[in-house]
Amino acid sequence: MTESDDVFHDECGVFGIFGRQDAAAIATLGLHALQHRGQEAAGIVSFDGSQFRVERHVGLIGDRFTKQSVIDRLQGTRAIGHTRYATTGESGLRNVQPLFAELADGGFAVAHNGNITNAMTIQRALQKQGAIFSSTSDTETLLHLVAMSREKDFITRFTDGIRQLEGAFSLVALSSKKMIGCRDALGIRPLVLGDLDGAYLFASETCALDIIGARFVRDVKPGEMVIVTEKGVESIFPFEPQRPRFCIFEYVYFARPDSTLEGRNVYDARKKIGCELARESPVDADLVVPVPDSGTPAAIGYAQEAGLPFELGIIRNHYVGRTFIQPTDSIRHMGVKLKHNANQGILNGKRVVLVDDSIVRGTTSKKIVQMVREAGAREVHMRIASPPTRASCFYGVDTPETAKLLASRMTVEEMADFIRVDSLGFLSIDGLYRAVGFEKRDADAPQFCDACFTRDYPTILTDQSGADNVRQLSLLAGGG
Amino acid sequence: MTESDDVFHDECGVFGIFGRQDAAAIATLGLHALQHRGQEAAGIVSFDGSQFRVERHVGLIGDRFTKQSVIDRLQGTRAIGHTRYATTGESGLRNVQPLFAELADGGFAVAHNGNITNAMTIQRALQKQGAIFSSTSDTETLLHLVAMSREKDFITRFTDGIRQLEGAFSLVALSSKKMIGCRDALGIRPLVLGDLDGAYLFASETCALDIIGARFVRDVKPGEMVIVTEKGVESIFPFEPQRPRFCIFEYVYFARPDSTLEGRNVYDARKKIGCELARESPVDADLVVPVPDSGTPAAIGYAQEAGLPFELGIIRNHYVGRTFIQPTDSIRHMGVKLKHNANQGILNGKRVVLVDDSIVRGTTSKKIVQMVREAGAREVHMRIASPPTRASCFYGVDTPETAKLLASRMTVEEMADFIRVDSLGFLSIDGLYRAVGFEKRDADAPQFCDACFTRDYPTILTDQSGADNVRQLSLLAGGG
Amino acid sequence: MTESDDVFHDECGVFGIFGRQDAAAIATLGLHALQHRGQEAAGIVSFDGSQFRVERHVGLIGDRFTKQSVIDRLQGTRAIGHTRYATTGESGLRNVQPLFAELADGGFAVAHNGNITNAMTIQRALQKQGAIFSSTSDTETLLHLVAMSREKDFITRFTDGIRQLEGAFSLVALSSKKMIGCRDALGIRPLVLGDLDGAYLFASETCALDIIGARFVRDVKPGEMVIVTEKGVESIFPFEPQRPRFCIFEYVYFARPDSTLEGRNVYDARKKIGCELARESPVDADLVVPVPDSGTPAAIGYAQEAGLPFELGIIRNHYVGRTFIQPTDSIRHMGVKLKHNANQGILNGKRVVLVDDSIVRGTTSKKIVQMVREAGAREVHMRIASPPTRASCFYGVDTPETAKLLASRMTVEEMADFIRVDSLGFLSIDGLYRAVGFEKRDADAPQFCDACFTRDYPTILTDQSGADNVRQLSLLAGGG
Amino acid sequence: MTESDDVFHDECGVFGIFGRQDAAAIATLGLHALQHRGQEAAGIVSFDGSQFRVERHVGLIGDRFTKQSVIDRLQGTRAIGHTRYATTGESGLRNVQPLFAELADGGFAVAHNGNITNAMTIQRALQKQGAIFSSTSDTETLLHLVAMSREKDFITRFTDGIRQLEGAFSLVALSSKKMIGCRDALGIRPLVLGDLDGAYLFASETCALDIIGARFVRDVKPGEMVIVTEKGVESIFPFEPQRPRFCIFEYVYFARPDSTLEGRNVYDARKKIGCELARESPVDADLVVPVPDSGTPAAIGYAQEAGLPFELGIIRNHYVGRTFIQPTDSIRHMGVKLKHNANQGILNGKRVVLVDDSIVRGTTSKKIVQMVREAGAREVHMRIASPPTRASCFYGVDTPETAKLLASRMTVEEMADFIRVDSLGFLSIDGLYRAVGFEKRDADAPQFCDACFTRDYPTILTDQSGADNVRQLSLLAGGG
Repeated sequence: MTESDDVFHDECGVFGIFGRQDAAAIATLGLHALQHRGQEAAGIVSFDGSQFRVERHVGLIGDRFTKQSVIDRLQGTRAIGHTRYATTGESGLRNVQPLFAELADGGFAVAHNGNITNAMTIQRALQKQGAIFSSTSDTETLLHLVAMSREKDFITRFTDGIRQLEGAFSLVALSSKKMIGCRDALGIRPLVLGDLDGAYLFASETCALDIIGARFVRDVKPGEMVIVTEKGVESIFPFEPQRPRFCIFEYVYFARPDSTLEGRNVYDARKKIGCELARESPVDADLVVPVPDSGTPAAIGYAQEAGLPFELGIIRNHYVGRTFIQPTDSIRHMGVKLKHNANQGILNGKRVVLVDDSIVRGTTSKKIVQMVREAGAREVHMRIASPPTRASCFYGVDTPETAKLLASRMTVEEMADFIRVDSLGFLSIDGLYRAVGFEKRDADAPQFCDACFTRDYPTILTDQSGADNVRQLSLLAGGG
Repeated sequence: MTESDDVFHDECGVFGIFGRQDAAAIATLGLHALQHRGQEAAGIVSFDGSQFRVERHVGLIGDRFTKQSVIDRLQGTRAIGHTRYATTGESGLRNVQPLFAELADGGFAVAHNGNITNAMTIQRALQKQGAIFSSTSDTETLLHLVAMSREKDFITRFTDGIRQLEGAFSLVALSSKKMIGCRDALGIRPLVLGDLDGAYLFASETCALDIIGARFVRDVKPGEMVIVTEKGVESIFPFEPQRPRFCIFEYVYFARPDSTLEGRNVYDARKKIGCELARESPVDADLVVPVPDSGTPAAIGYAQEAGLPFELGIIRNHYVGRTFIQPTDSIRHMGVKLKHNANQGILNGKRVVLVDDSIVRGTTSKKIVQMVREAGAREVHMRIASPPTRASCFYGVDTPETAKLLASRMTVEEMADFIRVDSLGFLSIDGLYRAVGFEKRDADAPQFCDACFTRDYPTILTDQSGADNVRQLSLLAGGG
Repeated sequence: MTESDDVFHDECGVFGIFGRQDAAAIATLGLHALQHRGQEAAGIVSFDGSQFRVERHVGLIGDRFTKQSVIDRLQGTRAIGHTRYATTGESGLRNVQPLFAELADGGFAVAHNGNITNAMTIQRALQKQGAIFSSTSDTETLLHLVAMSREKDFITRFTDGIRQLEGAFSLVALSSKKMIGCRDALGIRPLVLGDLDGAYLFASETCALDIIGARFVRDVKPGEMVIVTEKGVESIFPFEPQRPRFCIFEYVYFARPDSTLEGRNVYDARKKIGCELARESPVDADLVVPVPDSGTPAAIGYAQEAGLPFELGIIRNHYVGRTFIQPTDSIRHMGVKLKHNANQGILNGKRVVLVDDSIVRGTTSKKIVQMVREAGAREVHMRIASPPTRASCFYGVDTPETAKLLASRMTVEEMADFIRVDSLGFLSIDGLYRAVGFEKRDADAPQFCDACFTRDYPTILTDQSGADNVRQLSLLAGGG
Repeated sequence: MTESDDVFHDECGVFGIFGRQDAAAIATLGLHALQHRGQEAAGIVSFDGSQFRVERHVGLIGDRFTKQSVIDRLQGTRAIGHTRYATTGESGLRNVQPLFAELADGGFAVAHNGNITNAMTIQRALQKQGAIFSSTSDTETLLHLVAMSREKDFITRFTDGIRQLEGAFSLVALSSKKMIGCRDALGIRPLVLGDLDGAYLFASETCALDIIGARFVRDVKPGEMVIVTEKGVESIFPFEPQRPRFCIFEYVYFARPDSTLEGRNVYDARKKIGCELARESPVDADLVVPVPDSGTPAAIGYAQEAGLPFELGIIRNHYVGRTFIQPTDSIRHMGVKLKHNANQGILNGKRVVLVDDSIVRGTTSKKIVQMVREAGAREVHMRIASPPTRASCFYGVDTPETAKLLASRMTVEEMADFIRVDSLGFLSIDGLYRAVGFEKRDADAPQFCDACFTRDYPTILTDQSGADNVRQLSLLAGGG
């Protein structure tokens, strides 16, 4: 197991722009700002008025999409893009989005963040009708549903298709006439609408608007389908209205701190989470130290609320990527500190509050605690800026199977023993809801999707009802 | 000009290990921890008891040196390594260190941090005697001086060679019998001695000991030559004793915050610099915001001293490398925020103290101030954690020529106008000395090299006395 | 225009093996022997009893498929492969065969040599029913036809599919239970059945059996579908029986001289062509010189029949690939001899008979004649081992459009003037038929496909009947 | 052992041009024509009037030197180049020629074909004086000898240097003012002078003049040093005059058949060799078949003299490179025919004379004979177009050590048994001399270097006299 197995993998990021010179270059910038949502592969489809161009590459946006030759191939004033995880080899690349198909009435491209929870079921039904799938991505089901719809009008065929989807989907689509941004009825994943000097944009987060100086117009609403054409913007609501349930973990970990989602600034939410945590779970200590970078805003909030000094007692080496392979067994057993180092000069002799966003498998926490102790900390108190994560996500996040989640098989006391801290505290679920502006969680009609904490999944999980399919299709495809 | 032209380029990092299985793999880890000292190329030379192996590559350590095939080629229990800047193409690669030569009595490899200020002068003299230089690196002069020395004993030939060098040199050398770590008489650049289960190590900073769990033994002393053999460690002092003058900018910017150099923890020094700055240059404001990541520790110190909240009002995108090319003119003129984004949710309506480590050309500061203002900041006060940088460094740091340094041609008021802040304050030179533990700078016998602030160069600059050589040789070679 | 535009591009090669360890490694060898049929891309699909593996790469077999990692990924005892032309970039790679689809009842892979002359028409019809095409290859139509067939049994669905195809197709297919080798009713392209210690093989030519020491069993018959299962070999004939019309140009140029196709050894056929040519078109000359390598066997035949010495008066540089780019205009205008050089020592003062296989655009012939004259030849007589090529091929060969074929717009005399020879002679169509064993061409029921000489296309050309589709779909896809 | 271990490896090729736009592009073409003399690495040094540019790459000329970017970096009107073998990795690349050094009075580049037989001895002496060698190439000794010469004038320093060299050297050198072409006193390796519209050229063979349409001026004479400057051409003879001894094996195998060396056309010489062989060693047979491609001209000569039909009974697959790796043991044991295939249609039932240029280890001959028998040949008679090769070459050819040469440990009868032929005949040494125009070998003063047949080495072998150095330095460096 590598350290990267011990975090919730970021999900995917989507971006679209309609009606602007250098559309693909702008999409490249937007995807760069969304790189934290998926670091392993990316794609852009552009349309130049007559032809669609597709570029999909494994690697970072900044490395693979900024070459002149790539941008030159992506002609056109409209473009959509996607950033995500990918597996290696040919089979991986064919799963990189946006997916594109030449339908009977023209090209059609889709980029998707989320996970379609009945994708396997749909796929099997379509294959029986003779459909040939060229990827293992859940997103491809939508292409086929649209292609096989008997409706005349493209928008009707599109809504015909998405109405058959279950699960979470914030998606951006491009046809020869239209760009569409659409969220599922619950609005589980984010999607925002922006405006760059009159050209409309979609993006997973507002930070992708900021990078290019675009104006934030509004969130696409849960269940809304926003259609951009040369004439402007239209909006329709093709689904049964439901009470929205935005993913609360976006505030805890996924989103970039400078984004504002559903009216809340993410950094501010994280600081408030830290404040709640300090109130719920105070410690008599000398310092508050974040596990960088994800624990930092909550640690600042904790320190301010607790009146304790905030210190960078752990330094993160940003040069480390996934690629750092430890070449020999003896090296692997040395327990090298590739990613984090404890600053002995700060920690020695101190009682330390360590703040992290969550505990997944617990192995990283254990290593960090040990490192902090070896740096001389007298006491180590771990405070976690969310409730215990007890259940897998089926909405586009690569979670370890439930049994591997530390909180699914241990009490808080056992977890404290396991990671060897003097004390361990998690934020309560109501504390989390308070931090994002509610009095508490409404158990009858929860305001958010919080299934990873509560096991209360807001949609049916059709593919899961069969015995063998424990994984979500979007992840088999290497991302979502 | 790119943003990367508007910082002082980190210098080089060196590492050595003697008497340990997987020496090259350990050197890889050490260099990874020193990656901040040079991101563009690296090399490792190992010795397996009979043969020297050389691997030199352009790129990050984690990308180029962790392949099994590379490590497998670097057999042996002794290895030295180097990380640095490099130019492109073949000519660049031959300048990547460690340099290696097969001398009459065996192989000899050298890795060097610093700059030899009479290298060009020596090179010309040696070429007249028939020496053939295979690089344009200042470091190669030492190879030739050692090769051509008439002394019998290797150590005598080595000291014969280094005694002819002027300037700054913290270097690690490897022969078939010995590993040597050596600092110039002033000890301008850092070098530490460590111990890993009985195997001795040299490293530019202690963070390279921490990554592998090695024990810090002590700093190599200014003017000291530490010789490691199978029998243990010896120490000689080949130079005229002088009062040491360690580079004070290592505390301001170069070194990693978790390193401890010359008895001072770098993070702690930076926080104290921030405290001094708050005392010298207070502001009536709402928030203290660092320019990440280099301004962060000083900002924490400033905020604590000033009793103001510390906030991450600017988010840094760590995925951006040097490789992000903006493909079209229209994109370049958009002023995209590739590296930093201001968090409007935090800054809007606020009076902000921005803390950065230094101002080089001023263009980045100007952009950041504008970005903070566009995010709604009511007032922007810039505080700089060092005195104005007015002069080039000739000791291994890639500084813009003096005329391009903003502080060399503007008063503080003019600079404040140029970057458009409501107020601008620099730390005083005495304030800087106080932060690192002295009452003030001793003008007669300064305790540090601070030439970039004071133009008081601690060595003669032989190559500079000729008219045409305004650049240091180590940088012509693409690094130092 | 490059020299490579002035030949008929070789077509594709296919290979299959069923029931043998290292099936993919053997397919690699078979494809290497078929490399002359397509040099730009190749693919192999293997099946290991439960899973299909796909590897497709641009480049030569020997460069891209012999890596341990590639072969290791291609597990299984069954494999089919394809070698072909390919365009660059992503869109090119998705056209590289074998094509593979996961159908409702399991995986299905197809590799095809030839061209389906109604592929575009079928594709449009299928798209209207909602089919999504993931390539622009004519071969993909068969995948969809099989996928959408309502028949129950796989073999019935397959025959249902191929019966809808028009044109030339020698194809090899692999399902989870069967390997199929099939030729169109006319048997335009070759396909042979072989046996390697009990494992059955298909290959485009016998030279692909020889390389691995496999035994030649027999040609797959025109219109035959040979089905290989674990139980052995079955044969069915799904098409209306027709008089076969094998491509006569296979004997002139495409096939490798050491192959035996339809009972005739190719080298022997070419020598006999040279003999017929010497009888039909004798010259009073000193030497017979082939344009290497394709003219060599006919030149040997010509020389033997004419009683003239055969000499290698033109040397071919085998190191030249397609990749030799002439970097500047002034170089391009020098008329450099990248590929061929005339041997002055042999040619000077001599009356030379040059023998080549065919004339396409005439530009290469013109250059070669000039080169031979500059080497001092006193007379140059060109003899062509086939009739004038006047018409495009629509059966899988990349021919220039008819208007660019020299023979389509000039008489033989005009052609002789154009390429500046003292005399020019082509083999007659009846001479060609004699060389391959017939008394003459049967005008009412020609024994071969010879449309490139006679414009007598043996099938209807459905896609050509529309105004805009002058190219064959297999070539839009970059090969056939 | 691979098949490529069972040939004499071609040596190196050199090229130079002085005073012509696009000099490097022309050098690229010249080296492409010399590719048969060394396929694994190449380099070009150009000079633009103020700066030398160096490009050295592993791979074929056509693959690595025709990129616009490479040619663009090689500015200037003067260039020299080299093609050769190379080992892998960094250490290999530093041995790729031309070697270049910045001497006290300017740049100096050398490209060398041959082998300096006292290079190790010189190197050790120079290292004791403090010289640092940056390659393991024998050629570097000349750079140091020139650099360390105390003579004032460049030409005097150069002759001072080359006079100390023993062995074979046809070399091309470039300084900031001059281009020099020079052969050792015996003229062992070829070198010709050409003229391209007034610009002078040097090349190893005339085929490198032909490719660019340059005029052949004359061979550089044994012991001659031709100096090209802006004023024209001068010639000096720095060595003691000796009777020339050109390498006779150049006619047998190394040179390209279309080259003319020392007044003899190579193809013509090979045909005459075949005629002599037919006279000395006739057979009652049906066909003469060459082992392609190197045996082809001799086979044509043999067939013409013997009055037997010449047939291409063995087909060579030109797509095979060194890179075709047979991935598994079971495949390796199949005895696959990667490079050659016997044409059963031609050979079946026939009595065959196989003609090859030489026998090295004998393993390839054995395989080919077996293949020809399996194709049905009734009798196989092998005829070799040279005497038995019994001794290693020390003049720039990579020969197996003497003990591995079949002829060094077997009689002709034993060799016939080993390769399993019905009869085996070699050309006599006098027959070989007759074929190149002499009545016979002059035993007292042989007209050629024929040491590989006679063990009569024409120079002293200083490095060989020490016990341990059985290999020539140029080959340790990966070529020569």
